Amino acid sequence: MLIGKLDAVDVVIVDVARGDGTGRHDPRNVHPEGKVPYLITDDGQEVRESAAIMMYFDELFGQPLSPKIGTPMRGSFLSWMSYYGGVMEPVIVSAFSGIDHPAITGNFRGMAEVCTALEAGLKDRPFLLGEDIGIADILLASPFQWAPHLMPDSPAIKAWVKRVGDALDGSALATFEDKAVAELGALQSA
Amino acid sequence: MLIGKLDAVDVVIVDVARGDGTGRHDPRNVHPEGKVPYLITDDGQEVRESAAIMMYFDELFGQPLSPKIGTPMRGSFLSWMSYYGGVMEPVIVSAFSGIDHPAITGNFRGMAEVCTALEAGLKDRPFLLGEDIGIADILLASPFQWAPHLMPDSPAIKAWVKRVGDALDGSALATFEDKAVAELGALQSA
Repeated sequence: MLIGKLDAVDVVIVDVARGDGTGRHDPRNVHPEGKVPYLITDDGQEVRESAAIMMYFDELFGQPLSPKIGTPMRGSFLSWMSYYGGVMEPVIVSAFSGIDHPAITGNFRGMAEVCTALEAGLKDRPFLLGEDIGIADILLASPFQWAPHLMPDSPAIKAWVKRVGDALDGSALATFEDKAVAELGALQSA
Repeated sequence: MLIGKLDAVDVVIVDVARGDGTGRHDPRNVHPEGKVPYLITDDGQEVRESAAIMMYFDELFGQPLSPKIGTPMRGSFLSWMSYYGGVMEPVIVSAFSGIDHPAITGNFRGMAEVCTALEAGLKDRPFLLGEDIGIADILLASPFQWAPHLMPDSPAIKAWVKRVGDALDGSALATFEDKAVAELGALQSA
């Protein structure tokens, strides 16, 4: 949506089984484990994990939202994209679910370290890789958008999450989500 | 080492605090959380997470071990690189540590799904992305090399892990590791 290519993607709205018992494994979901998101490319490649799907789309459309190979900040970009799934998600799932286990802390650390890492990345710049929003910002800010109670008590991080939200087209996103929810409701009651 | 560029990297051997109580946070380790690996690029970018560091080095040396942007299997490549940290590592840490929690299973699933995913990726091809070994294979096979008791009871996966091991220079790796252990021992007793 941010790069104006939503029409190039065939989006399939599916239900998912949620931790609170609601939802279900939707037979229209082709992800082998019933998760979202999932991308099947035009040539049939199956791509899972938000970071990989965002990188694939960004590359397909000329990388408007990431540093190209060999340019400054490419290393930092790869680092943030791997950090999301490799650290931030396990830490947030654990914090969200009240899991407190030395193996989790030992391998992934906790919210305090996530907060420190983000603050270091945002030092002296509005977005993680510089002056402009990129897919790294959208990905790493997303947990605080759907779970605002996990937002660290950090002015720098709060201001960044707001900047990311402001850079997206909130009205178009809301319209898309309303349409998706309505479509899902119609399918469920069919 | 596989692309012949080990000499281009200044490798610093450091101790780490381990889950069994051995080791320590090594003051020479510049990783903000005392983990390994960690890369500081020539222009000062800090890169964490194995997947990101492997991608950075591979890109720096012309991508001998990954599909370039816009070529077939690029989407599958990005998917596997994100899958490692985003799914495989949390699942393996949980299996290794005996953590059995619905939030972990709900978000990351378990070893059975990891096994199914790898078997699907290796169907009709010797390596994850085709005929040749790449950084995706080295990354995803690595847990079964350091924790062979977690190896799924799958002939296809066992044969792939062996192929990955055979494609690496075992003798050079052993020499490097012996030197690293000796260096670390000398530092600890100094």
